Amino acid sequence: MSSTNRFSKRVNQALTEFIQQRRVASTEISPALGILSKEADALLVGGKRVRAGFVYWGWQSVVAAREEADHTAGSEIDPGFPGIVNVAAAIELFHAAALVHDDIIDGSDTRRGRPSTHKAFEQLHRDSEWVGDSERWSRSAAILLGDLLLNWADDLVLTTTRGLEHGEAAHDVYRRMREEVTLGQFLDVLEEVAWIRQDPAELLQHAQTVAIHKSAKYSVMEPLLLGATIAGASQEQLSALSGYGLPIGVAFQMRDDLLGVFGDPSVTGKPAGDDLREGKRTVLVEIARRKLPANVRVLLDELLGDDSLDARQISMLQDAIRSSGAVERVEHMIERAVGQALESLHEGDFSRSSVLELERLASSVTDRAK
Amino acid sequence: MSSTNRFSKRVNQALTEFIQQRRVASTEISPALGILSKEADALLVGGKRVRAGFVYWGWQSVVAAREEADHTAGSEIDPGFPGIVNVAAAIELFHAAALVHDDIIDGSDTRRGRPSTHKAFEQLHRDSEWVGDSERWSRSAAILLGDLLLNWADDLVLTTTRGLEHGEAAHDVYRRMREEVTLGQFLDVLEEVAWIRQDPAELLQHAQTVAIHKSAKYSVMEPLLLGATIAGASQEQLSALSGYGLPIGVAFQMRDDLLGVFGDPSVTGKPAGDDLREGKRTVLVEIARRKLPANVRVLLDELLGDDSLDARQISMLQDAIRSSGAVERVEHMIERAVGQALESLHEGDFSRSSVLELERLASSVTDRAK
Repeated sequence: MSSTNRFSKRVNQALTEFIQQRRVASTEISPALGILSKEADALLVGGKRVRAGFVYWGWQSVVAAREEADHTAGSEIDPGFPGIVNVAAAIELFHAAALVHDDIIDGSDTRRGRPSTHKAFEQLHRDSEWVGDSERWSRSAAILLGDLLLNWADDLVLTTTRGLEHGEAAHDVYRRMREEVTLGQFLDVLEEVAWIRQDPAELLQHAQTVAIHKSAKYSVMEPLLLGATIAGASQEQLSALSGYGLPIGVAFQMRDDLLGVFGDPSVTGKPAGDDLREGKRTVLVEIARRKLPANVRVLLDELLGDDSLDARQISMLQDAIRSSGAVERVEHMIERAVGQALESLHEGDFSRSSVLELERLASSVTDRAK
Repeated sequence: MSSTNRFSKRVNQALTEFIQQRRVASTEISPALGILSKEADALLVGGKRVRAGFVYWGWQSVVAAREEADHTAGSEIDPGFPGIVNVAAAIELFHAAALVHDDIIDGSDTRRGRPSTHKAFEQLHRDSEWVGDSERWSRSAAILLGDLLLNWADDLVLTTTRGLEHGEAAHDVYRRMREEVTLGQFLDVLEEVAWIRQDPAELLQHAQTVAIHKSAKYSVMEPLLLGATIAGASQEQLSALSGYGLPIGVAFQMRDDLLGVFGDPSVTGKPAGDDLREGKRTVLVEIARRKLPANVRVLLDELLGDDSLDARQISMLQDAIRSSGAVERVEHMIERAVGQALESLHEGDFSRSSVLELERLASSVTDRAK
């Protein structure tokens, strides 16, 4: 088992224990609160721990470099600071919070191969034969579970970093990440409705701003910096990790854009063409719009965001986007971003094993076959 | 101007400055993010600063007692620690976050005499001639603004309490408060749909649990303890303030229950009988249900939570609740709670002026004429 997998297992264990603690505490107020921890548990099981992995390798890359310099190597397998597991677990809790609200916002019915939280609550409402509007109630309950997971994430980051030498700096990275993703998500939903009133020349740049804030910084760069900051990284190391994390994050989002339009439902765990129904104005879509003839662009604009699109319409939109050459363009951008990221990584002062693992992670989150 | 009013003004100023700072920072990412700070500003203007006032008097009561003991009195007008203004402002930001999500959950169209946030965003969507479903979009935007305000509150509490002698303990009070209100809100919405499947003998106790967590601890007790903890309160002082804050908070909620059913819209800023349409299972409603004859209780259960109730039906429900004797019973409970609170206050080691102001606040948040 790789150290990344081993770490993921420890994160899973920490999540289970944390949720169990909260379950015990909250059900003392009322046994009914077990509903929330049960759903949290079910939701948290399925994650790929991408962000946790970046927290770990941000931390590990700095620790290993120091050990190499001090000739004390060998602690990679068993991290000396167990708190890094909790910080990574906290980031996964934060991510779960964002997903719960995001799924309400995007009207997504599935997540991680199971019903999304508001859908799971809808089923609970029906199975329990409660009164009132099950859809409305389940949305309310999901808003509150998102809020609760946010509390939990904050609590776990804070209590773990408190008193550490670099705890305050680490907490500042966390707060910045949290702010960036919320603003990025708002720009994302704004773009879905407001693009029509904006300067067409700016739409691609808007899509890039969304990708950077909603995804790149949040999913890759800040988790890396969080781990590295806790480990006491130098300015040079932080800068090399940023130079790696930002383009990898952008590439990660562009891969996600491609999967959102062309992905296989059995792999993505979401219906085919989901992004098209949601009307996401991604970098892929904006590049396609620029390249398409006017009459096809008008059709694309008309269908994008219509949540009743059928299989034929989805397939037509896929063909239009493919025919524009946007897919090749985005693949090229991904490749270039990964190249740029690896260059920054190689310039940094990191151990050979850290570089190898960060190279592997770069492929794994941006590759076609993910 | 009383010192409470003077403090409120400083809190308002701190809120304006904080939101302005965040506006500047976020609009560097995209000018469109000004939408969020503008709505935050508009929403924050209208508050009564109840929670800020309790933060202040929690702090002030401990500081004044110490000064009296040390014969250094006189700093009441100008608090020596300006950070207490920021902590109080943070609690108001947190409250705004809770209101934004709460208004989506309860489907409330008005708040603080203006459209609720999701309604304001709906208008913005229409005025801007954006595309897509304005209701769905505005709900999404409001979920994200709630998340953002939560971030802001956390940031402001954290950065203000960091490094203070009692900063960690204060932050723990804040985290506890945040957790309690989220759990209380969930129990509140759960009760609206699940009461029918529960033991009727337990419903009143459930309503009381909701009142304690969603309101009493959150609105009164924890803000007091937060201020007092920062000031370095003794265990005896914290215990006296809890003994005051919890019953005042419960009475505050019971007064709110009465206003939610019988309140004058011109005073409450909400439509008459709003709680009846929302189907809130409050202490008032549960007491009425116990006292009403079975046939009227069935009718009450049937109409409660029907958001299309007309004026005649509202008036009928008001009459039924009044005729049950529940109003007198709740008025009596409020009176008793206030008495109990003042007893705890008088047993505490506080200065005369603090006791006077906490007595005044107790009346002002629980009185009929509020």
